[in-house]
Amino acid sequence: MSHGYESGRLNLPFVGISTFGKRPYQPDWDRLEADVAVLGAPFDFGTQFRAGARFGPRAVREASTLFSFGHAGAYDHEDDCTYLGSDVRIVDIGDADIVHTDTMKSHANIEAGVRAILRAGALPVVIGGDHSVNIPCINAYEDQGEIHILQIDAHLDFVDERHGVRYGHGNPMRRAAEKPWVTGISHYGIRNVSSTAREGYEAARAMGGDILSVRQIRAMGVREAAARLPEGARVYVTLDIDGFCPSIAPGTGTPSHGGFLYYEVLELLQEVANRHEIVGIDLVEVAPDYDHTGGTAILAAQVLLNLLGFVFHARGQRGV
Amino acid sequence: MSHGYESGRLNLPFVGISTFGKRPYQPDWDRLEADVAVLGAPFDFGTQFRAGARFGPRAVREASTLFSFGHAGAYDHEDDCTYLGSDVRIVDIGDADIVHTDTMKSHANIEAGVRAILRAGALPVVIGGDHSVNIPCINAYEDQGEIHILQIDAHLDFVDERHGVRYGHGNPMRRAAEKPWVTGISHYGIRNVSSTAREGYEAARAMGGDILSVRQIRAMGVREAAARLPEGARVYVTLDIDGFCPSIAPGTGTPSHGGFLYYEVLELLQEVANRHEIVGIDLVEVAPDYDHTGGTAILAAQVLLNLLGFVFHARGQRGV
Amino acid sequence: MSHGYESGRLNLPFVGISTFGKRPYQPDWDRLEADVAVLGAPFDFGTQFRAGARFGPRAVREASTLFSFGHAGAYDHEDDCTYLGSDVRIVDIGDADIVHTDTMKSHANIEAGVRAILRAGALPVVIGGDHSVNIPCINAYEDQGEIHILQIDAHLDFVDERHGVRYGHGNPMRRAAEKPWVTGISHYGIRNVSSTAREGYEAARAMGGDILSVRQIRAMGVREAAARLPEGARVYVTLDIDGFCPSIAPGTGTPSHGGFLYYEVLELLQEVANRHEIVGIDLVEVAPDYDHTGGTAILAAQVLLNLLGFVFHARGQRGV
Amino acid sequence: MSHGYESGRLNLPFVGISTFGKRPYQPDWDRLEADVAVLGAPFDFGTQFRAGARFGPRAVREASTLFSFGHAGAYDHEDDCTYLGSDVRIVDIGDADIVHTDTMKSHANIEAGVRAILRAGALPVVIGGDHSVNIPCINAYEDQGEIHILQIDAHLDFVDERHGVRYGHGNPMRRAAEKPWVTGISHYGIRNVSSTAREGYEAARAMGGDILSVRQIRAMGVREAAARLPEGARVYVTLDIDGFCPSIAPGTGTPSHGGFLYYEVLELLQEVANRHEIVGIDLVEVAPDYDHTGGTAILAAQVLLNLLGFVFHARGQRGV
Amino acid sequence: MSHGYESGRLNLPFVGISTFGKRPYQPDWDRLEADVAVLGAPFDFGTQFRAGARFGPRAVREASTLFSFGHAGAYDHEDDCTYLGSDVRIVDIGDADIVHTDTMKSHANIEAGVRAILRAGALPVVIGGDHSVNIPCINAYEDQGEIHILQIDAHLDFVDERHGVRYGHGNPMRRAAEKPWVTGISHYGIRNVSSTAREGYEAARAMGGDILSVRQIRAMGVREAAARLPEGARVYVTLDIDGFCPSIAPGTGTPSHGGFLYYEVLELLQEVANRHEIVGIDLVEVAPDYDHTGGTAILAAQVLLNLLGFVFHARGQRGV
Amino acid sequence: MSHGYESGRLNLPFVGISTFGKRPYQPDWDRLEADVAVLGAPFDFGTQFRAGARFGPRAVREASTLFSFGHAGAYDHEDDCTYLGSDVRIVDIGDADIVHTDTMKSHANIEAGVRAILRAGALPVVIGGDHSVNIPCINAYEDQGEIHILQIDAHLDFVDERHGVRYGHGNPMRRAAEKPWVTGISHYGIRNVSSTAREGYEAARAMGGDILSVRQIRAMGVREAAARLPEGARVYVTLDIDGFCPSIAPGTGTPSHGGFLYYEVLELLQEVANRHEIVGIDLVEVAPDYDHTGGTAILAAQVLLNLLGFVFHARGQRGV
Repeated sequence: MSHGYESGRLNLPFVGISTFGKRPYQPDWDRLEADVAVLGAPFDFGTQFRAGARFGPRAVREASTLFSFGHAGAYDHEDDCTYLGSDVRIVDIGDADIVHTDTMKSHANIEAGVRAILRAGALPVVIGGDHSVNIPCINAYEDQGEIHILQIDAHLDFVDERHGVRYGHGNPMRRAAEKPWVTGISHYGIRNVSSTAREGYEAARAMGGDILSVRQIRAMGVREAAARLPEGARVYVTLDIDGFCPSIAPGTGTPSHGGFLYYEVLELLQEVANRHEIVGIDLVEVAPDYDHTGGTAILAAQVLLNLLGFVFHARGQRGV
Repeated sequence: MSHGYESGRLNLPFVGISTFGKRPYQPDWDRLEADVAVLGAPFDFGTQFRAGARFGPRAVREASTLFSFGHAGAYDHEDDCTYLGSDVRIVDIGDADIVHTDTMKSHANIEAGVRAILRAGALPVVIGGDHSVNIPCINAYEDQGEIHILQIDAHLDFVDERHGVRYGHGNPMRRAAEKPWVTGISHYGIRNVSSTAREGYEAARAMGGDILSVRQIRAMGVREAAARLPEGARVYVTLDIDGFCPSIAPGTGTPSHGGFLYYEVLELLQEVANRHEIVGIDLVEVAPDYDHTGGTAILAAQVLLNLLGFVFHARGQRGV
Repeated sequence: MSHGYESGRLNLPFVGISTFGKRPYQPDWDRLEADVAVLGAPFDFGTQFRAGARFGPRAVREASTLFSFGHAGAYDHEDDCTYLGSDVRIVDIGDADIVHTDTMKSHANIEAGVRAILRAGALPVVIGGDHSVNIPCINAYEDQGEIHILQIDAHLDFVDERHGVRYGHGNPMRRAAEKPWVTGISHYGIRNVSSTAREGYEAARAMGGDILSVRQIRAMGVREAAARLPEGARVYVTLDIDGFCPSIAPGTGTPSHGGFLYYEVLELLQEVANRHEIVGIDLVEVAPDYDHTGGTAILAAQVLLNLLGFVFHARGQRGV
Repeated sequence: MSHGYESGRLNLPFVGISTFGKRPYQPDWDRLEADVAVLGAPFDFGTQFRAGARFGPRAVREASTLFSFGHAGAYDHEDDCTYLGSDVRIVDIGDADIVHTDTMKSHANIEAGVRAILRAGALPVVIGGDHSVNIPCINAYEDQGEIHILQIDAHLDFVDERHGVRYGHGNPMRRAAEKPWVTGISHYGIRNVSSTAREGYEAARAMGGDILSVRQIRAMGVREAAARLPEGARVYVTLDIDGFCPSIAPGTGTPSHGGFLYYEVLELLQEVANRHEIVGIDLVEVAPDYDHTGGTAILAAQVLLNLLGFVFHARGQRGV
Repeated sequence: MSHGYESGRLNLPFVGISTFGKRPYQPDWDRLEADVAVLGAPFDFGTQFRAGARFGPRAVREASTLFSFGHAGAYDHEDDCTYLGSDVRIVDIGDADIVHTDTMKSHANIEAGVRAILRAGALPVVIGGDHSVNIPCINAYEDQGEIHILQIDAHLDFVDERHGVRYGHGNPMRRAAEKPWVTGISHYGIRNVSSTAREGYEAARAMGGDILSVRQIRAMGVREAAARLPEGARVYVTLDIDGFCPSIAPGTGTPSHGGFLYYEVLELLQEVANRHEIVGIDLVEVAPDYDHTGGTAILAAQVLLNLLGFVFHARGQRGV
Repeated sequence: MSHGYESGRLNLPFVGISTFGKRPYQPDWDRLEADVAVLGAPFDFGTQFRAGARFGPRAVREASTLFSFGHAGAYDHEDDCTYLGSDVRIVDIGDADIVHTDTMKSHANIEAGVRAILRAGALPVVIGGDHSVNIPCINAYEDQGEIHILQIDAHLDFVDERHGVRYGHGNPMRRAAEKPWVTGISHYGIRNVSSTAREGYEAARAMGGDILSVRQIRAMGVREAAARLPEGARVYVTLDIDGFCPSIAPGTGTPSHGGFLYYEVLELLQEVANRHEIVGIDLVEVAPDYDHTGGTAILAAQVLLNLLGFVFHARGQRGV
């Protein structure tokens, strides 16, 4: 049966508990049986301007229900393809426990969640929270082989340490670059002034980073941008929602004008998914209190669901 | 163990999937084992001014997490009492399925949910949705013995039929009054002009209704207002959030100035819970798109949780 | 026929062009045939903090549709009385023309509108705009005999002149007090610091003003407050929405905590309407951009419609 | 006289009753004398996610006043042309009566309004409401000869029937395609997952539909996209505001990222207006509660006024 | 000269840089010469639900400009008294430096600011930030003699330690009670469930706390509530804005229905200021992102300015 | 030392008093020692639709703190250049005094401020306020030699006089064109209907104006558009925020769809700054009450800071 309309429920988007994509909720992290496991990481003490990303997981989950019309799979007429059919098992495992005032404990709990997902052989999808939650995510890949990171972001986030801070939302790419299992980083969408000073850019490049602005990627095309990732690399995608233009992603702490439009990121991710194995995803910095129309959370859900569709379609193509 | 802090999670309010009170989610209505079952009824096609109550269940659920600090039970220092200890089993059973453009099918699905709860011996708590969802709720009590209805509302909702409409949010109390198992209705908080015309008031009184305005109740005191309910009656509470003053409940479709303040309703409900068996509850007309600060949803959650606390505390006192 | 449901339209509040109370629109000011004529005065260049009252007339008109359910008249069960039956003819005459950057021309246009209403023998109801629009309103009563002004407001608005400004929203009561046909002013609700300095208070009292704060009126009761108006006086009511508590009237330029609650103003106006002939009304300072829930505009519409009901009910009682 | 400034009113946009373009209001549908008649269709019970389009007509009317500066006609310096001069008679005929909980009656009232406009020989412009209001609009063309529909939309809206629903906002294009007088449909802007499943796409193509995505139209250019409409066809335009990118049209129920930008739609409509007779227009799904900045309603008004300008300019060119 | 209108600037509230009350800005903490020094403490990593209090200092400063009309002093007609004349020197010393992810450093910087103010002999007024900023404030009084704390709050904030957290916004009163120089705490306004469990209440009472709910204080009157503070005590006031009713203070992280109304707190503070020496003030938990109308920030500014007026008026009366 | 992190403060964007870019505040206009002086002009009585630009200066100042991370200068990795190093002295001189109801006095005060800046040899940067504040700005250049004006705007603003109004926000370019020292105006971005009628366009061209729409500039490229400015001209830039697309600049009074995207304006300004001496800047019509996400104010701050960077970088290149 290809969908459940004749029997059962109509299940309109506004009806039902808000798990990611209305997929099953599995609070027992020792019993994960899934291809994809979605974890919320509602931590935002790492922000340097506006907070509120702690409500990102709830907002993205609720927005994701808009894409749940009860169909089995999502038909895309442009690709003439049905994505995320019933063969792709997605579960929502709830949120990592957060301890206010305590960054290290909160990060440790996030890391534990990602490790549980990896242990179960599922693809981790982490919804932040601020970009510092990428730090425990990357930590969890310690024993997972080498990975290349594709960062989509307005800001380089490559501050080493300042006033003792090493685990804020300006530091994750620096922390990642230090890891032996991170073989390189593609920093895409970087633009404008931010917390990273000139020294950070120089350090990023010295540590193997490939920094491209929106205009640079626009000039070369997303196909060429995708082709710059090292061939054969297993790719972890970290997507800061402020990589997008504030016109479609206003609901974030540090919006930066001049960002990516929707199809630029979509096509870049599709291209990368076709060329590479995607081994992990985080999407961060959705701050719903600044997202009055809900459009930012819808964008996040739309991108995540499409990206998952691309990943599993490509797996199918590759016969995985 | 009185709470779970030493072991396990801190579980701050902003963390985790938004079920009612973060209580367990039980989508299988044939397997309900609980003292209280919470059902969402996201139907709002019955509204005559602003819609949006379809998102009421989600908003009240999310707001209810504010009252979930991981304690076992809620200590109230004024009453020197811990309410809703671990002995009171509350489950969230999700939403009734809603069929757009079809009032009768949607109502039937709500009725089916309430019947399932009653069958399981649990106390039904229905979160609307507009006030028309009270109609299928009352229908479900067909075989439950006689009930008296306590309506807290700005509007009488006693229109019989107009342009063929009999199941909109202006009709529920008329529909209820027609039921053989409804022995009477206390209409409390009624004020100002609304969809019910003079004839409706006369009909309500003729059918045994006791209509009191906010000022009338304020003048007599909530204790006396509570004492007007027939002694020994089994009481169903229908709480339209617009019974409250718009200062604390702006997030609703048809706000009406001059409504109840918080303690007036709280103390009335506490008094009624102490004097009567409460056999069902619905709370309707929370429209989150008009609730920019979240205060209306918080009010709804706060009142529901307190009312449940009163109900089970009184049961304990009565040795039930 | 007491209403139009059987034949014709259901006419729900959200349906139809937004004139005041959905009453007829009469743009030809030489052909007014009505008991009440409603004029918009969308002028706000006189504000000293937040502007936006220029959209007050539109907002109050739209909110007034909430009270239009197609009934003939508004039944109030507390008074057991139907107000504003079909015998009370209300027309909406649109807005006075406003000339940006030019206070005097704009005020002159408002004055022309009020004079047209008075010429037609109708009761003027002017919806501001900022409180400076009261100045041309009072000017229009030059040949209408003596009037007493009842001001409901947080601020005294009694500045004489400062930096040359004599016609801003801090000046109207001073301008009024200077008129020979204004025999006195009851300044009710005045509280907190504002643009009027100590000298203004002394001048107001010297010119015959009776200044009472919210707490003073609360202590004496609205009945006594109403009784302080000179017996037999023909009363003009100027109602600054910030006289109300910001909890129910946030949508205004200079909110001031500690204001009147709903029934306090309602009962004061009912008492005054019963004791005195009301010869004119303005309601000012509704600024919809700060009224996110719409509650302030609803309050304004609700108060105006009730006041009109009281006025014409009292006229009926007096056999006018 | 080319405008009314020297005599009469300045008539700034924020002044006056909000009819469409501040044009005359004609509530008597038997006395329409106009080239264009604007009808509000405030029906939104057909929505599957966020409601609120019932307030679309009011919002678009109010926004349309921004384009009313008292000029006779709108000068466009790019086209060096004055559109909508005093020779084009536009009237606002108010709203169709809506009956809550009753889709069929509400639709019938909308159909009656469109039939009245057609009977008067005027061009119908219907402002929704959700997209289901297109169903009664198309019904009204039963005796008007053959028409081709140009749909601008994110969603295909081609669901046949599901859980008995045939007249919701996911069904209109299917209902239209069934009509003998509808010779074909150009579905432009369709993208992403929605309520229409794969079967719907196949059915639409089988019934003569031409489905193009935003990217496909962008690739071919709007000129070529316009040229795909059958030559000589009389065209009915149905414009779902969610055809636009959420960056400029956030105020809608089911926003979909990746939509049209302003000039794409403007130029497509100009091209179509130049090539074809436009026999009817509806613009739907503006939901002002999600349009916090007012930009969506402004967009709707701006597009409608421009389209009307193009239509009557082309008529003039064709010597009609 | 009593004010500056004839010469100089009109200085309307919306004009000028937003320091507190538009008072002078003194960034050099070694050169403070003032009676009152206002310090911002924009720290909110201690929150357990909604963050955003980091923008509290900016919001309260901006709101405070509403009370700056260029007068010399604020005339209160109810008290017939001019408060805060030019003899009371108030300076704004800017914000304590905050280090994201680092609670202890941030708190240390706040403590340094308060110590600088105390060293200069000025009255510290600290604007939070979440309630945890009270911890460094109280620390700074180590060498200032004994103090009694008057807490106005919805929540007891008396958690000792949980998951290692000792310096979050649920802990400050416990931390204060541990200090030798804190002789007692009056916890006023406490109500409803919160992060403090039953054990916390018992501990608070055991450590000398006097816990009163809003209803208890309302029943006894504010005069009696004030009289419960130990005679002769030097009082530090910590005012959590959520002590107020959400109807007037929605802009906060954890609103709690049933709170204080405006005059209740105002009169309590006036009474305490008349009876006691006030040695320090903090006002916390204003979160402007939830304060869409600005009313909460206006309330905070209004209370602070009134309290300062009371303090210095009482000092004058006492001949200090 | 290139920045202040090791010693001193971290100075996160949300910390500290909101002067422009957190630069020093200099209220004494006779003691300006700076390269750039920023003046607020909070005047909005000249608006013809939505007011609120009076809060523009405060909003832009607050937004500008987002770009203040404590670095010495802003490193741009695309240009590989550090802009606005410590050698560029920027001061904030506060706001011009505004007199409500009095356009001429308010304008005179703005003119006085610009004259003070010019006298001090600094570059004036004026933040409006509505576009009429450009009138006193241009007046102040009376004795500064010839200037060419680059206007970036949706509207031509070339109304001569209407109903006596000559100094509203529809008039500034006409007023400028009349000045002997204004040698020409480049009107860029002009589109759609507005307050300027056909006659205004003809007059503008007759008085030497070069009118280009967004599409025209897009077609020729910003480089060619920049090249149309007269070689060697000293350029004054007046930037109406509604020149931008409402998708990124919703927070303004009269949004107009189809505007410039971010890089179009940025690159145009960079090109002009490289080719010409920039002698003055105003940025107007930011109305924060319509800017719910803060994105418009952030855009304004981002453009101003970048433009200043370009100006002083070009000065350095030219050896000025």
